[in-house]
Amino acid sequence: MLILGLDPGLRHTGWGLIESEGTRIRHRGHGVLHVDAAQPLSDRLAALYAGLKEVVESLAPDEAAVEETFVNRNPVSTLKLGQARGVVLLVPALAGLPVAEYPPNLVKKTVVGTGHAAKEQILTMVKVLLPGCGVTVGDAADALAVAICHAQHRRHAALAGVAP
Amino acid sequence: MLILGLDPGLRHTGWGLIESEGTRIRHRGHGVLHVDAAQPLSDRLAALYAGLKEVVESLAPDEAAVEETFVNRNPVSTLKLGQARGVVLLVPALAGLPVAEYPPNLVKKTVVGTGHAAKEQILTMVKVLLPGCGVTVGDAADALAVAICHAQHRRHAALAGVAP
Repeated sequence: MLILGLDPGLRHTGWGLIESEGTRIRHRGHGVLHVDAAQPLSDRLAALYAGLKEVVESLAPDEAAVEETFVNRNPVSTLKLGQARGVVLLVPALAGLPVAEYPPNLVKKTVVGTGHAAKEQILTMVKVLLPGCGVTVGDAADALAVAICHAQHRRHAALAGVAP
Repeated sequence: MLILGLDPGLRHTGWGLIESEGTRIRHRGHGVLHVDAAQPLSDRLAALYAGLKEVVESLAPDEAAVEETFVNRNPVSTLKLGQARGVVLLVPALAGLPVAEYPPNLVKKTVVGTGHAAKEQILTMVKVLLPGCGVTVGDAADALAVAICHAQHRRHAALAGVAP
């Protein structure tokens, strides 16, 4: 079972691929898609779509997982993130993958052990849970974290009331 | 010159097609795409994508115009709308169309004459400006209104500092 975790953003979208077998997980890859901020919004979204489509087609994951968005106090930022997030949820859905969503505090709790972990703690714990993954960028670590969360919770999803 | 106006929403997305030649405009069609709210978010976005792709492919517009989103005080609504809006901006961009965006008050000012018009006034004025269009639904009228706004402003876009 290959799980693709995604951390959406209008400028930087992290992705992380893990293999899950029973209770074991293994790192398979990660990266960050960068989109030129100088382009018109529609072209930026098209670039994000194209980059993510290539990731999904080349990695051929079985399922995808995206963190639910923390609703920012800044509504302009929330709108921007929402637009990127729409494309990030769309691409795996068009590829026929189930797309699960998890609240940020569940991702943190699963990976770090507490729902209020700092970004650096997530990076540190992702490196512990996926030895040799060599992740150094926060966006990619967050994507791996939501993939790990999905690996752990997908079998208990019905009990926890979490999609899918 | 065929202009496709779009009014994004996660449940209802309006579209309106007009023909623009010099200073004249003519109604060519309109409709509303409805998406089943009971599906997972990623599937809803995929349904919106598929419906809008069909509209763009069958109507073959030359340019598209989308209203800039009024940033709602409710951040959850803003995020939802943002996700739909990301897909609505994406589809014409993937078809190679220029996608212009206009602030709501410019759309209202262009169509009604004041930047603070009510939804019913837009519907009324769209019917006046596009005789025989027979539009009755607000979402479709708003889509036609942004198409009309684009027809009027696209040639003066550089002066007004508005995209494209």
